[in-house]
This record gives sequence, C-alpha cells and structure tokens, in this order.
Amino acid sequence: MQAERITSAQNPLLRHIRKLQTSRAYREECGEFVADGWKLLSEVLKWYPFLTNVIVTDRKSSPELPEGVRIVEIPESLMQSLSSMKTPQGVIFTCRLPQNRDENICAGSLLLDRIQDPGNLGTILRTADAFSIPVFLTNGCADPFSEKTIRASMGAVFRTLPQYIPLQEILRKKLPLAATALSSASVDLREVDLRNYVVVIGSEGQGISNELLAAAEKHVIIPMQERCESLNAGVAAAIAMWQMIK
Amino acid sequence: MQAERITSAQNPLLRHIRKLQTSRAYREECGEFVADGWKLLSEVLKWYPFLTNVIVTDRKSSPELPEGVRIVEIPESLMQSLSSMKTPQGVIFTCRLPQNRDENICAGSLLLDRIQDPGNLGTILRTADAFSIPVFLTNGCADPFSEKTIRASMGAVFRTLPQYIPLQEILRKKLPLAATALSSASVDLREVDLRNYVVVIGSEGQGISNELLAAAEKHVIIPMQERCESLNAGVAAAIAMWQMIK
Repeated sequence: MQAERITSAQNPLLRHIRKLQTSRAYREECGEFVADGWKLLSEVLKWYPFLTNVIVTDRKSSPELPEGVRIVEIPESLMQSLSSMKTPQGVIFTCRLPQNRDENICAGSLLLDRIQDPGNLGTILRTADAFSIPVFLTNGCADPFSEKTIRASMGAVFRTLPQYIPLQEILRKKLPLAATALSSASVDLREVDLRNYVVVIGSEGQGISNELLAAAEKHVIIPMQERCESLNAGVAAAIAMWQMIK
Repeated sequence: MQAERITSAQNPLLRHIRKLQTSRAYREECGEFVADGWKLLSEVLKWYPFLTNVIVTDRKSSPELPEGVRIVEIPESLMQSLSSMKTPQGVIFTCRLPQNRDENICAGSLLLDRIQDPGNLGTILRTADAFSIPVFLTNGCADPFSEKTIRASMGAVFRTLPQYIPLQEILRKKLPLAATALSSASVDLREVDLRNYVVVIGSEGQGISNELLAAAEKHVIIPMQERCESLNAGVAAAIAMWQMIK
C-alpha cells in the first residue's frame, strides 16, 4: 500500500492529532479520537469499524487496512514528538467516535457516576467487557475515548462502547438502582441479588451524587476492615460486577 | 516546635531524598524510603512507627510529631523541585524500611509473583488491607516502598507490611498453592475453596513463573468472555481475594 509522507510538524493532520490528544471538547466537536500503539490498532481492526487515519514511521510494519483509511508515513523524530508515549511504538491512529446508541438501561447494567480517573475508568471498562456487563455513564465521568482511558481499557472500550445517559433520564425511568455507598441503610452487597439492579459506582473522592443516592432502592457496601476508608474505584466496581454475574 | 531551615538544593538531606525517590537500590542500601503528602503522613503517624524526617514548607501546618523526628522547613520553590507530585502538598517525609518479619506464609495468604507495575502493586496492597489478607512477595515484584506504590496503596502498605519470601523457600515448604493461570488443568476459581490455599497472582505480561506453576496444586481462572485476554492484575487479585474471604 502506498503511503502519503508528511515531514512537517505543522501539517494540519498532525496539528489535528495533537488537539485530539489534549482536548475532550475538540474530540467531541470533531467526533473523532486518537490512540497509540499496534495492540490497540489491532483491536480496532477486529472490533471497531470507524478507523479514519493511521500514522506510521514505517508503512511496511502496518497490517492491511480497510479501504478509505488514510495512511501517512512520518519520520521517527516527528513520531517521537507526536506520540504521548515514552517509547512510541511507531503508530498513532484516529477513529470516529461512536454514536450514542440509546441502548436500554436495565437491571444487570453498571452505571458510573463521576468516575474521574481515566485509569480507573479504563480498568472498569476492561472488567465490564470481560464479564459482558453493559456500562452507562452519567454526571461528569472522564472521557472513555481519551488516550489514557483507551490504554487502561486495553482496547475493551472498542467493544463495550459505554453509553451516556443524563441523570434526569435515569431518575425519570425509576430504575432499580443499587448504589455502592456507605449510609445508615447500607447492607452487605452479598445479601442482595445484584442481577436485579442497575449497580451505581461513584467517584472515590466524592462518591455518588445525592440525587442518585436518594433515588436508589438499595445502598450496598463491600464489607471491609474499619481502618480502611475505601477500595480503589476499579476494584470496587470489579467486585460489584463479579457479584452481578454470579 | 522549632524547625531547622534549609534553603540550598545541594543540602545533603535533600540530595538524600532525591536519591530515595529514584533508586530502589539506594532505598535498600539506606534502609529508608520517602513519601509525599499530608494524607500519607497522617497514616504513618497512626500506623507506622519508623518516621525519620519531615520536610515542610510551613512548619505551622505540620501535625505534632513524635520525639526524635527531624523537622525541616524549606522554601516553596525548593519543595516544587523536590516533590515528585505535580501539585506538591507542602510535605515530604522519610521513614525507615520495615524489617522482614519472617512471618509464616500459610493458607489464606496472597503471594505476588513478578507484579511489576507500582500502581497495580499499590492497589493490591490496598485491597489486601481492606480484606485483612497477608501479602507475600517473591520473584521481582515492584518495590512496595516506592513513592508510586505507596501512593496507589493509599498508605495501606504501612499496615499490611508485605513480606519477601524467596522462591526456593516457597518450593521447599510445599505450600498448598492455587495459581491464577490458564492451563489445560485450570478450573473456575469458584469451584475451589480458596481459603485453603496460598493464592498466587502473576504479572500481566508474563504471568506466573514456571517453577510456581509446576508446584501449584490447583490452577484457577476467573471465567470471562473469550475475546478478552485478561483482567488488570489489580482486578484479578481483588476478585481472588474476595473469593478468599467468602
């Protein structure tokens, strides 16, 4: 396959990629995101049909790409400055963001509220994919299509495709919510059949927002040593999901 | 409390701290480690009796310290360059490393083999602390007392005090090992009463070393979608520990 060659850091495509790397607003405006590395590219080729551009240092190292994908070769020095990885693998690519599919949220789904750490969000998406649990996002979560989240998800985000759902819609639907939160009404999560609930996970710092806490049918906790304040959000979500598939 | 004041980046104490931050070999040589931030300092004051130096930008913001701890004030500009955090909180401190306690490894313990990511190691220590599970390290794990691991553990490392155990000793003791690993003999980990085993978790990239795999009585897996290759090591360990305390 013949590749275009770009040698100027000021080329519009490379400027576009740098903005996709750093700005969520720009990603949403363009409807595109960027990711880095061969492993993630192979996941996209397997699972995600919206690949747009592939930037490589050596076009011979690229796998075969679908028709219509633009392939561009750049010098290694340029890749070094473009890539957000310490040791660039020699490939950066862009994809269109998925459409929100208006999938039905129902019992057996995971709802993430204000999960702000991209590493935690990616880890949660990876676990949800492993256990086939649909994931919904509300209220100020990190961007599932930021480079860090994609990397932490190990590409699972291309398969799970988390959906956004506004808080008002959740409340309007009167879903059977089980909020993982410590309150006077909290019960051990093993005492509840979580398959019958939409399980809500909140941010480590702030927990679950008050509206969701108030709307939840159950408050559940993962029992632990008193001296510990909390589990990592990715770990708490994993244990909740594990209980959901039992 | 009156504090010493240091204003030169070349002061021996500050050079000592910079070397503690970056070199595991130096930490082991000196028998000391360094950590950053008020929250971790408060955990040390509660749980870990080996505090040695406290470096602050404003001595009035420091809680009361045990006798014999050296307290040093430095200018904010110096803290900015010394701290490994993007937004330094104004306190860095050092402690002596714990002695290896030669605790007895037995069923109900977690054994970590070649866990190399400090974030994963810290998360595992945090979960183990929450579930009161003793942790042992063998074969090339990340340093539990690196700044990154301590931070990811949220200070749990000061309470769990993971112990080192040489591979040869594990093999010699003929412990009932359950290795989380995919092999032809692997069974769903829910089919095994993990309380009767030392559960072994390996690194994501390399898995568990061959000697441990061969010595294991059971190979167990966390069942998941075929399309997923693995879970995050912190998540896999969390689910294993959750099964261990059921």
